[in-house]
Amino acid sequence: MPHTLLISHPMLGPMQAGLEAQGYRVLRRWEMGEGDAAAVEAIVHAGEIVLAPEFLQSLPRLKLIANVSVGYDGVDVPWCRARGIEVTHADGLNAEDVADHALGLLIGAWRNIVAGDQMVRAGRWNNADRMGPRPGLKGRKVGIMGLGHIGAAVARRAEAFGMVVSWWGPNPKPDAAWPRAQSLLALAEGSDILVVACRADAANRQAVNAQVIEAVGPRGMIVNVARGSIVDEDALIAALKDGRLGRAALDVFAQEPTPAERWEGVPGTVLTPHSAGGTVDSLPSMIGQTFENLRRHFAGEALLSPVSA
Amino acid sequence: MPHTLLISHPMLGPMQAGLEAQGYRVLRRWEMGEGDAAAVEAIVHAGEIVLAPEFLQSLPRLKLIANVSVGYDGVDVPWCRARGIEVTHADGLNAEDVADHALGLLIGAWRNIVAGDQMVRAGRWNNADRMGPRPGLKGRKVGIMGLGHIGAAVARRAEAFGMVVSWWGPNPKPDAAWPRAQSLLALAEGSDILVVACRADAANRQAVNAQVIEAVGPRGMIVNVARGSIVDEDALIAALKDGRLGRAALDVFAQEPTPAERWEGVPGTVLTPHSAGGTVDSLPSMIGQTFENLRRHFAGEALLSPVSA
Repeated sequence: MPHTLLISHPMLGPMQAGLEAQGYRVLRRWEMGEGDAAAVEAIVHAGEIVLAPEFLQSLPRLKLIANVSVGYDGVDVPWCRARGIEVTHADGLNAEDVADHALGLLIGAWRNIVAGDQMVRAGRWNNADRMGPRPGLKGRKVGIMGLGHIGAAVARRAEAFGMVVSWWGPNPKPDAAWPRAQSLLALAEGSDILVVACRADAANRQAVNAQVIEAVGPRGMIVNVARGSIVDEDALIAALKDGRLGRAALDVFAQEPTPAERWEGVPGTVLTPHSAGGTVDSLPSMIGQTFENLRRHFAGEALLSPVSA
Repeated sequence: MPHTLLISHPMLGPMQAGLEAQGYRVLRRWEMGEGDAAAVEAIVHAGEIVLAPEFLQSLPRLKLIANVSVGYDGVDVPWCRARGIEVTHADGLNAEDVADHALGLLIGAWRNIVAGDQMVRAGRWNNADRMGPRPGLKGRKVGIMGLGHIGAAVARRAEAFGMVVSWWGPNPKPDAAWPRAQSLLALAEGSDILVVACRADAANRQAVNAQVIEAVGPRGMIVNVARGSIVDEDALIAALKDGRLGRAALDVFAQEPTPAERWEGVPGTVLTPHSAGGTVDSLPSMIGQTFENLRRHFAGEALLSPVSA
């Protein structure tokens, strides 16, 4: 009897053939038929999508949620653990890619690269009226929220541009190469650019609130490559409209896909469709790790990358 | 009697008040009246704009062309020298800013940041059909044409992203930290990304020709933060349309402003309005150096940053 997996979202659909080639029976959540729920032994999942406990309770044989992604904020891990459901994720595999994208957002927004492209294509470039000059990057203070794999990779890149790095996270890191601020608010107050690079959890939900946003200030910028849930997006939009925040470069949003109309008339923004983490280099590694976690689970071996929290 | 200066282009208009505050009489080329030509002793200039010898010959008292810019490709330096006209420029003052912009273009084009922004704003983002994943930056080969101040600053940044750097220029540099290719064509053949960062001169006019462009290839990208004259722009556009070149990220163009319609339907491009070099950090330095060159010239002292070629 083959083991039965459930792919939780259409964006993971391309994995189906590979999973079937490994001998699994693969169901699709968006096409479930009668009796399917009773068969599901593991879910192949993208961690940013919410898996409601009510749905999980309808799967009596479920024993594993294997996240292809690094993040797993859509999964209630303590709830799963209490019911004997294990959770795995990709462990740091795309940190370099996410950090690359974070710098692309940072420079693209700070140095008017996206706005410049719009200007050239609209025929609004004329030599007598260039865009106003922007501050350079050298010497700018970048504050990183979360100094994990991604945050540290952002820090190393920022230093190559002559930026001055500090960070904040809930836990001190005695070996960190950069100073830790006293608090998230202190980090924001001391930064020209705040980069959100931490794992999302219940403790940091909307932690980047109106007060933190205003501390970054009218000449400052917020970059988010973590999760939309960490930022109070309504407060962010209001601050950008009022000029209390200078710029925002976002790869993640409160709701994804974010509605285009939500950003109409919001100045100083660069927006990408949650594309920081997936490259042709990182995706095969992440998928390979998912396959190995599935294999180990069904073989009764220790999982390769269980969620550690 | 105050010395008489000529501002050569409206984009330098904002400098007029500062020059007058130094005691100069300031004329504007686009508003010259009868008798003005005979008074001009020095031109304050943006080096990418062509100063035709016919025009210079109409200025009998001209003894100095002070470029606010680093580049001076619009000035025929040997012609000037032969007539006793000295030429100064900004010496490397904005290399860090240009390199920052080059990396912003590179990441913005390679990782679909500009295209992603367009997708989100057009409401074309849906989770089942994200943009296809792109190759990451780590391990990609970046070839730099011209290892001067700017090229070296690009190389240092590229290494922080795990890219593998090589370069080519007409003169060997025994102290360079990166290997020099045998030729520009060999550099292009060995690179995923070719960054044009050299000074423009008669010898490298359209040096990035159809053959070099095709050597970069369908999966490759060209970034130009130097001068449009160095690239055969018609060949570049044809190669992008045919898929013989993957992408191009350009801050400089054959004609500036480049006509918007020239880029309609040309895939894989990011275009910025020659904004790499001017930041609120670099511009005051460049303007200050221009002022000092003017002061020294009229005081009979050695110039601070004469053109060395």
